[in-house]
Amino acid sequence: MAITKPGSIAPLDPTAATPFYRQIYDRVRGAIASGVLKPGDRIPSARALTQELGLARGTIEAAYSLLAAEGYIQSRGQAGTIVTPDLKPQAPAPDPAPRSARAIAPVSFRPDSILPFQMGLPALDAFPRKIWARLGARCVRAMQPADMVHPSVYGLPPLRSEIAAYLQVSRGINCSPSQIFVTSGYRTTIELIAHALLQAGDRVWLETPGYPPTREIFGHMRIATVPVPVDRHGMVVSEGIKLAPRASAAVVTPAHQSPLCVSLSLPRRMTLLDWAARNNAWIIEDDYDGEYRYVSRPLPALKSLDREGRVLYAGTFSKVLFPGLRLAYLVVPEAQVERFEEVGDTFAGGSPELTQAIVTAFIREGHFARHIQRMRKLYGERRDATAAGLESVLKQHVRIDAQPGGMHLILRLQGKQSDRRLVARMREAGLYAEALTDWTTEGEGASALLVNFTNVDSQGTAEKLGKRMLKLM
Amino acid sequence: MAITKPGSIAPLDPTAATPFYRQIYDRVRGAIASGVLKPGDRIPSARALTQELGLARGTIEAAYSLLAAEGYIQSRGQAGTIVTPDLKPQAPAPDPAPRSARAIAPVSFRPDSILPFQMGLPALDAFPRKIWARLGARCVRAMQPADMVHPSVYGLPPLRSEIAAYLQVSRGINCSPSQIFVTSGYRTTIELIAHALLQAGDRVWLETPGYPPTREIFGHMRIATVPVPVDRHGMVVSEGIKLAPRASAAVVTPAHQSPLCVSLSLPRRMTLLDWAARNNAWIIEDDYDGEYRYVSRPLPALKSLDREGRVLYAGTFSKVLFPGLRLAYLVVPEAQVERFEEVGDTFAGGSPELTQAIVTAFIREGHFARHIQRMRKLYGERRDATAAGLESVLKQHVRIDAQPGGMHLILRLQGKQSDRRLVARMREAGLYAEALTDWTTEGEGASALLVNFTNVDSQGTAEKLGKRMLKLM
Repeated sequence: MAITKPGSIAPLDPTAATPFYRQIYDRVRGAIASGVLKPGDRIPSARALTQELGLARGTIEAAYSLLAAEGYIQSRGQAGTIVTPDLKPQAPAPDPAPRSARAIAPVSFRPDSILPFQMGLPALDAFPRKIWARLGARCVRAMQPADMVHPSVYGLPPLRSEIAAYLQVSRGINCSPSQIFVTSGYRTTIELIAHALLQAGDRVWLETPGYPPTREIFGHMRIATVPVPVDRHGMVVSEGIKLAPRASAAVVTPAHQSPLCVSLSLPRRMTLLDWAARNNAWIIEDDYDGEYRYVSRPLPALKSLDREGRVLYAGTFSKVLFPGLRLAYLVVPEAQVERFEEVGDTFAGGSPELTQAIVTAFIREGHFARHIQRMRKLYGERRDATAAGLESVLKQHVRIDAQPGGMHLILRLQGKQSDRRLVARMREAGLYAEALTDWTTEGEGASALLVNFTNVDSQGTAEKLGKRMLKLM
Repeated sequence: MAITKPGSIAPLDPTAATPFYRQIYDRVRGAIASGVLKPGDRIPSARALTQELGLARGTIEAAYSLLAAEGYIQSRGQAGTIVTPDLKPQAPAPDPAPRSARAIAPVSFRPDSILPFQMGLPALDAFPRKIWARLGARCVRAMQPADMVHPSVYGLPPLRSEIAAYLQVSRGINCSPSQIFVTSGYRTTIELIAHALLQAGDRVWLETPGYPPTREIFGHMRIATVPVPVDRHGMVVSEGIKLAPRASAAVVTPAHQSPLCVSLSLPRRMTLLDWAARNNAWIIEDDYDGEYRYVSRPLPALKSLDREGRVLYAGTFSKVLFPGLRLAYLVVPEAQVERFEEVGDTFAGGSPELTQAIVTAFIREGHFARHIQRMRKLYGERRDATAAGLESVLKQHVRIDAQPGGMHLILRLQGKQSDRRLVARMREAGLYAEALTDWTTEGEGASALLVNFTNVDSQGTAEKLGKRMLKLM
């Protein structure tokens, strides 16, 4: 059945479950896997195959473009199409000519690699995947015709209820489900806020150092950003008031400042709320990992102190579940619900019904609360192990900021080492880190590395990683 | 275990899998279901229960807010909290006090109802749900840690490849996977285009009548829209050139004009492409249901004629799979790939890995092509049956446009009947329709109803629905 040489291909099966282009694709891939076609071999041109098989040219081209996109074949223009010369044999070899859907191996979508210290990731090894798979399979099997229509763009009602209940218990936020808007990530949340409450030309305070994408989104929407410094009590609110007293909004990360991990002090929280109330300004609270505090109890959210309805609370499931979910949410003040419904009707794409159903079941059945408890403990241990491991190896080269929360460590580089250059060398060596200077507005400030500890499983691993870093310093 | 009267609640179980607030919620719900608590009964105040159980006030409030959100209880302010007076008994009664996650019934998320003739929906009864559930369960079980990271914001590579191959075969579009950007719906697609290629103050041609949300999105982004009329050959391109020769873009629905279902003629396609090339304008091709043509073969997409790289092709899985997926895509000209990657990095939330994995498997294993084939046949039959059924009952009251494609019929109202008023009466009577005048810029134009036929299962059903309509005319 496999293609053996140009000009000899068995007829395709018009009764098969798989369309023609896929049958051709499968045959070529099968012939390569079985060694019938070898790297560098020439395969029939799309035109020749079109004539031979009596199919539409587009069918052959679809098969070939798929094979080319996946790296199996290469077009050499006039010289014809060949099997990719440096193609590595794959193990296990795919079924050379699957006849039914069941014979095809499950599709895998993994990125090339996850690097040690990679930022923004929870502990991927500790996620309860079995429970998740059980709930997921149950939800997908339970799908009825009525579940297939466009879900509410504000979010599935039961998920909104679960989030409201969770925020009450965990973050001290008192809100009704109608104040919750489900989004497909932090960026979508910020965009929704900007569409609803801000205008081109407005000014917004941003922490510096601070999460770079926030600046990019506002920049693109022609909203001016005012960098406000951060010290060990969080954003220096008085400085914001000095720099831009009439700003329309302030974005803050009160639980663990992103990236310095310090908490916004209570006096500053009160000053910020007072400023917002007096100026009709908005406070956007980015609570990306407020759950993760290891020394004492998590601090209540700034939103829990919001008596005047000025705080928009941005939460996400990326850190407490996983980023591949693309699920986040926004809590808006009660008086703004109508405005956000209006803007949501125009802009919100909405999150798939299935994703929301699985997360709802996960919360409702208690797995969510249990998972966060377990991660809080695990991250406390991994934080200590990573700090101890790196310190024992890197000694006088770094000073490690010991903050009570967050998911990464800050390694302050001693001497004149450039964080950006070290980060570049680390990436080349297969290690991840981010440079603190890349998180500041002008690239000024202290030289330090941000390294995520949630996937470092022991002090021994941290020592090994530290030794690899040491060679690059 | 159930709450029997204020002041007598058994201690909660701190070792249980379910958190306290959920245990309280379960007990109250269980007590209502079993009849221990009856509609109108008073239940303990949050404060009383807080004291009695020695729990945080927030825990009780979380349980109560969930119960209130789901309609079980109502707060009467000073008069206390009561079981909702007109609460209907539910069948089957939920387990009064589930002890483990498994005892909780699967969560259902159905909207209150799907109305007959509801627009924008494919045939929900004919979707291969069993195959879908099998693939979905397989994908969710196959999830590995590396699949949990943020998927590419442009879309999963294998899905982009499958879409490129499909468009080649089905719509005659020649593109590489890198030109495909996966989005979470048509609105997100339009927004991405606007961010990448348009600016506030630009002008864009829109068909009138035309899909109302397009106008809303541009309006909100301060992009001016120029209504261009539609006749039986589609958008009157010459009129667009007369009205706004220097517009930045034109949005068209060439396959089946939305909502008139006519096709854009070949001469007009050529004129439009020529105008765009000469003016460096963009053509946004909204191909929401190009697959569904019942008389001859589907027409190739306008994009297939695009030699100058001016056409942005907006496709969606909402109509060929189902809207609850929230999955659409955009094909951009090769020269614009870099620009869209840059904007995508800032704005795209991305679609969940799981959704994309299921759709990839569904296409790859041939179910997608087969489903479209089956639906094309089914919709042809349902279109004819619906038209025949309605015509036999409504006779001289309507004239039905017989177009060769699309998913809805256009019932032109004879006499002075207002489509808007009739639509309002139909909604009250539990029937769906949209008024053609609501799809025009100024609410001018012919009085007609748009009714979706894909969920009307027989001529008999159509006759019954027609009789209900007749009473409202």
